[in-house]
Amino acid sequence: MASFAEDESPIMKGDAAAKASDYANYFCSYAELYHQKQMLMDHNRMRAYHDSIMLNKSLFEGKTILDVGTGSGVLAIWAAQAGAAKVYAVEFTDMALHAKALVEKNNLTGVVEVIQTSAEDLDLGDVRVDIIISEWMGYFLLRESMVDSVLRARNRWLKPGGTLFPSHATMLWGAITYEEDRVDKQDEYTSSMRDWDIFVKEMADTYKVDMSVLDKHYEREQREYYIYSSLWTELGMQHVVGQPAVVRRLDLNTCTIAEAANVPKVDWSVQVDFNTRVSGFAGWFTVDFAGSEGTPVKQRVVLSTGPEGGRTHWGQQVFYLPEPIDCVPNTRLHGELVMDRQTKNKRLYTVTASINVDDEPEPRFAEAKYEMP
Amino acid sequence: MASFAEDESPIMKGDAAAKASDYANYFCSYAELYHQKQMLMDHNRMRAYHDSIMLNKSLFEGKTILDVGTGSGVLAIWAAQAGAAKVYAVEFTDMALHAKALVEKNNLTGVVEVIQTSAEDLDLGDVRVDIIISEWMGYFLLRESMVDSVLRARNRWLKPGGTLFPSHATMLWGAITYEEDRVDKQDEYTSSMRDWDIFVKEMADTYKVDMSVLDKHYEREQREYYIYSSLWTELGMQHVVGQPAVVRRLDLNTCTIAEAANVPKVDWSVQVDFNTRVSGFAGWFTVDFAGSEGTPVKQRVVLSTGPEGGRTHWGQQVFYLPEPIDCVPNTRLHGELVMDRQTKNKRLYTVTASINVDDEPEPRFAEAKYEMP
Repeated sequence: MASFAEDESPIMKGDAAAKASDYANYFCSYAELYHQKQMLMDHNRMRAYHDSIMLNKSLFEGKTILDVGTGSGVLAIWAAQAGAAKVYAVEFTDMALHAKALVEKNNLTGVVEVIQTSAEDLDLGDVRVDIIISEWMGYFLLRESMVDSVLRARNRWLKPGGTLFPSHATMLWGAITYEEDRVDKQDEYTSSMRDWDIFVKEMADTYKVDMSVLDKHYEREQREYYIYSSLWTELGMQHVVGQPAVVRRLDLNTCTIAEAANVPKVDWSVQVDFNTRVSGFAGWFTVDFAGSEGTPVKQRVVLSTGPEGGRTHWGQQVFYLPEPIDCVPNTRLHGELVMDRQTKNKRLYTVTASINVDDEPEPRFAEAKYEMP
Repeated sequence: MASFAEDESPIMKGDAAAKASDYANYFCSYAELYHQKQMLMDHNRMRAYHDSIMLNKSLFEGKTILDVGTGSGVLAIWAAQAGAAKVYAVEFTDMALHAKALVEKNNLTGVVEVIQTSAEDLDLGDVRVDIIISEWMGYFLLRESMVDSVLRARNRWLKPGGTLFPSHATMLWGAITYEEDRVDKQDEYTSSMRDWDIFVKEMADTYKVDMSVLDKHYEREQREYYIYSSLWTELGMQHVVGQPAVVRRLDLNTCTIAEAANVPKVDWSVQVDFNTRVSGFAGWFTVDFAGSEGTPVKQRVVLSTGPEGGRTHWGQQVFYLPEPIDCVPNTRLHGELVMDRQTKNKRLYTVTASINVDDEPEPRFAEAKYEMP
């Protein structure tokens, strides 16, 4: 069970500096209708949430629901339409004003209560809720670190035996072949370094300043930018090599905030199924609306953001290798994976992987470290 | 003369929250070599600074110089190469480390001292400097609001009779004809609104949520984005109609921080010189390296970011009208202009203009308000 003694994150309470830069970096885009519309037009996302509520109406009828980060209020409205007695819809940004207008327009004023506050500052008094719904997932599941707020709300306001919608999450790590795209990024890097050489010569010739001491730094900066940064990509099944490895499963009903914050060092393994050139790896996730022991669903719904699931706005995060790996059937790629929050911005992540081929004594890549921008 | 009793800005002293979001929004990009390189490859910019120093070496020989926001340190290095006895090069970001490496590589370790701090936190003790050099200008001169830091350093560390490089700045407001581009933006707006209508119908049909109450808000958001936001553009002389109006002149040697912070309501007037369709207006600036009464230059240098001056990374800021104005020779366009800092981010600006045609009793546009993103 979740520990109810988990510490409050220092980020959202008291620390005004962290809060301000968090707002500048993170919350502001969620205050735009344009951005809300993009999420609302993601039909795989919409269908999964809609079905999970509408195919399980009996869980909502007469119940008290909390929607964490309601945005324009659509999930809260669906919960009310499914028969909820009361829905608390919490939103930090001014999007809350639009949510209020939508609730009114859809004749749900008595049922949905929009509260403009952070999940951390929410005060429901003695009320406890039966279900918490939230769409908190970022790229490769964890980006944005919004799950903290959802689990903190769970620890405080969810009845024993209640459940989260979604209730479970799975992170996947797949080998991919996509040389056209990988080589494009390599070419951009090469071209950028060629530009730098021209620039350094110009600075010396024209302006009498020797910049060559920065060559190494520039190379590192550009490698981090073009090669060691993950990319948002829409992969097709033709890009996926073998079965993806599961690197993390979370039961959101019970996991701790710390458990949902990162991927501690985990072994992964992918068996290659045909002759191919592996260009790198991709990370994505699925979430399940499966309920909990105390609140089982009638109809389980799964939302997949993998290449097999059709398009979503999450796409996949792609991590290209500086050199491809040529594989034959039954080559086994394996290694370790770690995913940690960046120190400079806790809503962003760093993914570090080691990559081995079969039983080769040395890893092909001992510690490939990627920033997820 | 500048008042030495001007208040410190609350932004950079004590107010950790404002400082943190300022860093997230502003300083971080200046810590990238890629960004520095873009500025260093702007040859109009480089030539002007280089000439202003090298054609006025006598002002630098044996003198003490302060470079505010030195970045990679190039201006400080030039000042030293021109014969300065001592150059203090102040940089807030980690680019200071690269500046130190450059100084060393260019054999100026004894002369240029790189100090990693904000201009506000700089402490030179009893030292007073002869010249402050700085490249602080943003789009339409004022964007980024970095001039505050330069003037604050001037108030504290410049000797009486010293000067700033550049010493003067002029803001220009020109009428332009560029219908291809204006109509493109209009089309994007129209297309975005058509998408919204489809989206609202889909939400009602598929998901039983009536979003129509947000139509007006979405229209406003999209108008602000596509029409009432200025655009970075590279104009040619063929786009400029008549002579641009001067809307602000600043003597940086003497103006107050408040005077350099905005453009208070000012009258402007442009005489149209041929049959044309006016699409909107553009804002740009020039700076002069003219010295001061106490420190006159031998050779005056001007850096123009106008369409007549060739390319710079500043380009011009373009403000398109929702409807063009058809003009004949001697049509007089006139009105008022105000440029103010945005309350949510003091480094960004709002430009508000009224636009009248000849002696028409009503303005064509009474209060066209543009955000400069």
